[in-house]
Amino acid sequence: MKEYKLPEQINIPQTIILADGDFPSSSLAKEWLRECPYVVCCDGAVNTYLRFGKMPAAIVGDGDSLLPEIKERYVHLIHRETEQDTNDLSKAFRFCLSQGRRDITIMGATGKREDHTLGNISLLADYMEQAEVRMLTDYGLFIPIKEDSVFESFPTQQVSVFNMGATELSADGLVYPLSAFTNWWQGTLNEAIGNRFIIHVHGKVLVFRVI
Amino acid sequence: MKEYKLPEQINIPQTIILADGDFPSSSLAKEWLRECPYVVCCDGAVNTYLRFGKMPAAIVGDGDSLLPEIKERYVHLIHRETEQDTNDLSKAFRFCLSQGRRDITIMGATGKREDHTLGNISLLADYMEQAEVRMLTDYGLFIPIKEDSVFESFPTQQVSVFNMGATELSADGLVYPLSAFTNWWQGTLNEAIGNRFIIHVHGKVLVFRVI
Repeated sequence: MKEYKLPEQINIPQTIILADGDFPSSSLAKEWLRECPYVVCCDGAVNTYLRFGKMPAAIVGDGDSLLPEIKERYVHLIHRETEQDTNDLSKAFRFCLSQGRRDITIMGATGKREDHTLGNISLLADYMEQAEVRMLTDYGLFIPIKEDSVFESFPTQQVSVFNMGATELSADGLVYPLSAFTNWWQGTLNEAIGNRFIIHVHGKVLVFRVI
Repeated sequence: MKEYKLPEQINIPQTIILADGDFPSSSLAKEWLRECPYVVCCDGAVNTYLRFGKMPAAIVGDGDSLLPEIKERYVHLIHRETEQDTNDLSKAFRFCLSQGRRDITIMGATGKREDHTLGNISLLADYMEQAEVRMLTDYGLFIPIKEDSVFESFPTQQVSVFNMGATELSADGLVYPLSAFTNWWQGTLNEAIGNRFIIHVHGKVLVFRVI
């Protein structure tokens, strides 16, 4: 069974996409952003990332949100994508795949407009088909799974499970029972009993553990 | 067909539930909070609402998040609910129904933990069975519908539509076509063409217009 560590015990990610939601403020998020060797910024995020004191490996988007002086100075880093059918996060994801990167951590993808937040989170269910993905926010870690998986946890850790099309769903080690439910959002606000829990699933779910 | 005004043109709501997410900061949200005659606070939200200079009509929750001096001083306003199966927002919603209130505006329900944000937004699809509901955030207005509806808009207004179980879905007056889609999140990031658009639906959807 696939095992997922506690967020704090994950190695520094080797590839991060920084999206243009709220800039991360948790200490874990800032450590990852500082230490990661390869950060791809969606174009609206690059201004804040540069102010954070770091240089992105690439800037992906349609270039609309870049300050003129940044556009000029970092032109060699910009990968322009004018295709309108996907959002900036998906463009950055596709760029990472084109660079052979198959383990991708998404950050800065929540906060601000709620429809962006919902859209970005739900895209994890698509991205998992092509890479190992996770999303770190200031409040927790989202991981999409489509097979039985073990998650490290701690007693009373808050856990939410979102059904992204699973037809079977159950858990060991959570306070409230899970089922495939009628509605995708009915697995929120659960809680870990001990130091690990198991999700049994047929289909896709998103697992969120509060950090 | 039911018609929905632009957020700015809605009359001051007569019943607001203030949840414990980010305290509203848009000028529209603050105007509604200031002028509304009947604001029910989820218990974590009452501290900030009092600091905002207003007195809630009621405080609903398990009382855990109240500062001791507030608990003592406003004991007459507190409706304690220890039932664990629903979240504070649902407790406040049920309380409003018990008071005969059938037109309810939810605020402060997003920001902070993303699983709360997703859960609270999705609950609109349940609440609509029992009341006229809407959710105002700092970025836009969510409205759940289950019948063909007309929305006032303006050219280029950003619009997202979330499928909450609809089997048929289409729109007039949006830039990109809608369909029932395979996945609930595939109707995000659309755009109004002019001053109104129509959603045709069989089943439930959430409509989000950016303010």
